[in-house]
Amino acid sequence: MVVADDFFLSGLNKPGNTSNAVGSWVTPVNVNQLAGLNTLGISAARIDYAPYGLNPPHTHPRATEILVVLEGTLYVGFVTSNPANPAMKNKLFTKYLNPGDVFVFPEGLIHFQFNVGKTNAVAFAGLSSQNPGVITIANAVFGSDPPINPAVLTKAFQVEKNVIDYLQAQFWTNIG
Amino acid sequence: MVVADDFFLSGLNKPGNTSNAVGSWVTPVNVNQLAGLNTLGISAARIDYAPYGLNPPHTHPRATEILVVLEGTLYVGFVTSNPANPAMKNKLFTKYLNPGDVFVFPEGLIHFQFNVGKTNAVAFAGLSSQNPGVITIANAVFGSDPPINPAVLTKAFQVEKNVIDYLQAQFWTNIG
Amino acid sequence: MVVADDFFLSGLNKPGNTSNAVGSWVTPVNVNQLAGLNTLGISAARIDYAPYGLNPPHTHPRATEILVVLEGTLYVGFVTSNPANPAMKNKLFTKYLNPGDVFVFPEGLIHFQFNVGKTNAVAFAGLSSQNPGVITIANAVFGSDPPINPAVLTKAFQVEKNVIDYLQAQFWTNIG
Amino acid sequence: MVVADDFFLSGLNKPGNTSNAVGSWVTPVNVNQLAGLNTLGISAARIDYAPYGLNPPHTHPRATEILVVLEGTLYVGFVTSNPANPAMKNKLFTKYLNPGDVFVFPEGLIHFQFNVGKTNAVAFAGLSSQNPGVITIANAVFGSDPPINPAVLTKAFQVEKNVIDYLQAQFWTNIG
Amino acid sequence: MVVADDFFLSGLNKPGNTSNAVGSWVTPVNVNQLAGLNTLGISAARIDYAPYGLNPPHTHPRATEILVVLEGTLYVGFVTSNPANPAMKNKLFTKYLNPGDVFVFPEGLIHFQFNVGKTNAVAFAGLSSQNPGVITIANAVFGSDPPINPAVLTKAFQVEKNVIDYLQAQFWTNIG
Amino acid sequence: MVVADDFFLSGLNKPGNTSNAVGSWVTPVNVNQLAGLNTLGISAARIDYAPYGLNPPHTHPRATEILVVLEGTLYVGFVTSNPANPAMKNKLFTKYLNPGDVFVFPEGLIHFQFNVGKTNAVAFAGLSSQNPGVITIANAVFGSDPPINPAVLTKAFQVEKNVIDYLQAQFWTNIG
Repeated sequence: MVVADDFFLSGLNKPGNTSNAVGSWVTPVNVNQLAGLNTLGISAARIDYAPYGLNPPHTHPRATEILVVLEGTLYVGFVTSNPANPAMKNKLFTKYLNPGDVFVFPEGLIHFQFNVGKTNAVAFAGLSSQNPGVITIANAVFGSDPPINPAVLTKAFQVEKNVIDYLQAQFWTNIG
Repeated sequence: MVVADDFFLSGLNKPGNTSNAVGSWVTPVNVNQLAGLNTLGISAARIDYAPYGLNPPHTHPRATEILVVLEGTLYVGFVTSNPANPAMKNKLFTKYLNPGDVFVFPEGLIHFQFNVGKTNAVAFAGLSSQNPGVITIANAVFGSDPPINPAVLTKAFQVEKNVIDYLQAQFWTNIG
Repeated sequence: MVVADDFFLSGLNKPGNTSNAVGSWVTPVNVNQLAGLNTLGISAARIDYAPYGLNPPHTHPRATEILVVLEGTLYVGFVTSNPANPAMKNKLFTKYLNPGDVFVFPEGLIHFQFNVGKTNAVAFAGLSSQNPGVITIANAVFGSDPPINPAVLTKAFQVEKNVIDYLQAQFWTNIG
Repeated sequence: MVVADDFFLSGLNKPGNTSNAVGSWVTPVNVNQLAGLNTLGISAARIDYAPYGLNPPHTHPRATEILVVLEGTLYVGFVTSNPANPAMKNKLFTKYLNPGDVFVFPEGLIHFQFNVGKTNAVAFAGLSSQNPGVITIANAVFGSDPPINPAVLTKAFQVEKNVIDYLQAQFWTNIG
Repeated sequence: MVVADDFFLSGLNKPGNTSNAVGSWVTPVNVNQLAGLNTLGISAARIDYAPYGLNPPHTHPRATEILVVLEGTLYVGFVTSNPANPAMKNKLFTKYLNPGDVFVFPEGLIHFQFNVGKTNAVAFAGLSSQNPGVITIANAVFGSDPPINPAVLTKAFQVEKNVIDYLQAQFWTNIG
Repeated sequence: MVVADDFFLSGLNKPGNTSNAVGSWVTPVNVNQLAGLNTLGISAARIDYAPYGLNPPHTHPRATEILVVLEGTLYVGFVTSNPANPAMKNKLFTKYLNPGDVFVFPEGLIHFQFNVGKTNAVAFAGLSSQNPGVITIANAVFGSDPPINPAVLTKAFQVEKNVIDYLQAQFWTNIG
């Protein structure tokens, strides 16, 4: 039996706990939390940022994101994919956002939000999938389980193995 | 040439002017305001409600809506379509929403939000289309241009012609 | 085991019973009646109209409708959604249809067909969903179960509560 | 400027001219005839059959078809594609249809309708694309322009070249 | 529990057995063989051709195919559907392909590949569906189970019944 | 005027030039190279790998990839997105692939292929979009134009600024 509560969730007024390595927290509202979103092609999130907190570079493999800033000042950006036009390859688009500003992060592109102010920041986001997914780049690349073979990463990042070892160690000690 | 401003819009921090017949205002952020949303399947809106203001019964013909309440207390609801199961026909689902509460209005269904508090209310919405459209039921039915033939409306609403005349007059005098 | 009968339904040659308040009847052929339509994105319907019978203003939340008139003369119309161009807001498009005439009702828009002749009328419709849904506006707004709070409807329709009470009473006495 | 006539077409009450080799005629109502169907995912057709007339085996590369018989008796069928289950490979599903009977031809499958009665037959069809396309198998295989190399067809149909020559000659003399 | 093997299949290095009536073999890699393709909208195939072997005229009801030739010389083609422009009706597009050549067969259109060389040929194909389906025209039309009524086929192919009997006999004796 | 050459491209038999920092080269066959792919939802690529060459960790923002190995031995893998089930977060799935082996990289996920043999390797890929896009993670994160602010990257990767400076320098000196 379908009831109104299938379409309801509470708690987005509560700040997420940003006491972590990056100083931000995402509170998701997708089909895993809110069953009524099933088949409907949309979800939402609240994002909290401590002063100088970062929602680190990540992608949503199945969704575009539209972000509205409620409090604080965010420096946001996304990087284009390799396009037909080489002049647009890996192009970074950035903007400073203040309360009431809206920004769009197209589906699958790497993007980030950085709180450049001395106070907490808060944003709400809409996402074009009931289950957008999130790939936090640093964690997926250097903190995967099991770790990616360092030979792959030294060649990809064009650095010595000790740099990759160092990067992988951050995620396996601090976060993993 | 694509630039960051194609993905940017400001002004959602400003309350909409709710000095109108229903006491609410929707500030849309769709592809008509923000070109970077083109082909990306999502848009957003800010909704302001004066005390006892109403976002009147309406549908979005091309989108599901996910609503987050920022301020105030809203009484919200939607009506189901005629389903395979007759027991679910024209069923009304309602909920009282407070700040931080989230509610989903499935694509194409008639829904409303009513500010039942003595203070202003504010909500943000995500919508699953770059161009969701909105059909305000009362205005579309009684205030269309030109008006729908009263013979159609008297039969549809099962009332005398003078009731339909009266209803149509509201929209042609007050709003049309 | 799949068999030919999974793709078959009979009975669309039989007129629907139009002895009801609006003088029309829709015989649906969607996935609830015809299982073979599952995942195939289409359905159909037969619509019968008594003299001066009305298929009252309604929407299909998940489908466009293409209508072919077989018998009689129908006055049909749909109302646009609020568009980017304010000059097109709540615009009513209408047409008189005779046998062999075809009309398109775009997805999610409010539309109706009214038999303006002294004889029965019949039409067939194709719909772009296996399960298009139907929202009969008057019944959903004034005859929902439970009823929508009259405070919502008085503000939406810009009339006194007694008018709303009267309208709701039609559906709870006659149809509900 | 959009007008009601963009959504309107007349003439489906007129029988198509079935004085041709197969004794049937399809009157299409797709986006090429009715511009208002653009982006809406549906179209329609009227099909006339002389006594013993045939709508010959064909596919719609982009649409499922739902057929309603208005007059006459049709023997209809479709052939499945090669499925995962070999027992279902090239399985023919058939049915005799009388007025009011409905049948579904799933997207892309070869299907036909054959008027097995002594009188004209008429059917209406809905199709799940604004531009469904039609591939009449015999004409596409033996009457293409230019003709398919007979070496291809002798091997495909497992017959001598003179049989293929004979088949191709039918379409280049009679129809091509 | 999801594991890497859900996304893995081996064996596409092995030639298919082309000792059959048409001298070709398709090794499919779709969701029936490789479960990890579920919902992902793509599949693949290896196609082997004996000298003068033919992948006979067929359609994929749910997919476009992109073909890459690895070895040999193929004569390939597809036939258009009946278009809005009559000058394009049943138009045959052909090309000779050598190793490294790529050709596209649009969704639902009849197409074939013919090894015109004295050596084996090999090609790989990508298809835009997890379950593209295949309808081999000759087998579906003349070798369906049960057979299509010869009265349908004599009229469709514009030949005498003995020709149809002969064609059907090939598939019921040799292949059926 | 549409012609056969609109659906044709040559040259996939020629090895790509792998004399570059990562020792691999992707030769794309998408709508930018082959116009006939427009609207058809598929594309392809040839990938060459020098001994110990790497197709570095990357995503396709709009496509799933199905890879077939023609020559050589590849160590391949992908990392899951953050799922509902925390036990599956940033999980690495890997496999050694030999000629004839097939592997699927789901849409939007970070994946790589590494030639672990002493000889060249070659693979063909099908992708579920006419324009899949590619985001090479290292280049997009450390080699974007303009560079991402080091404050963002030090926090994301949990390292000192000199490590980020060093990483960015690789791409701006060697590749940028």
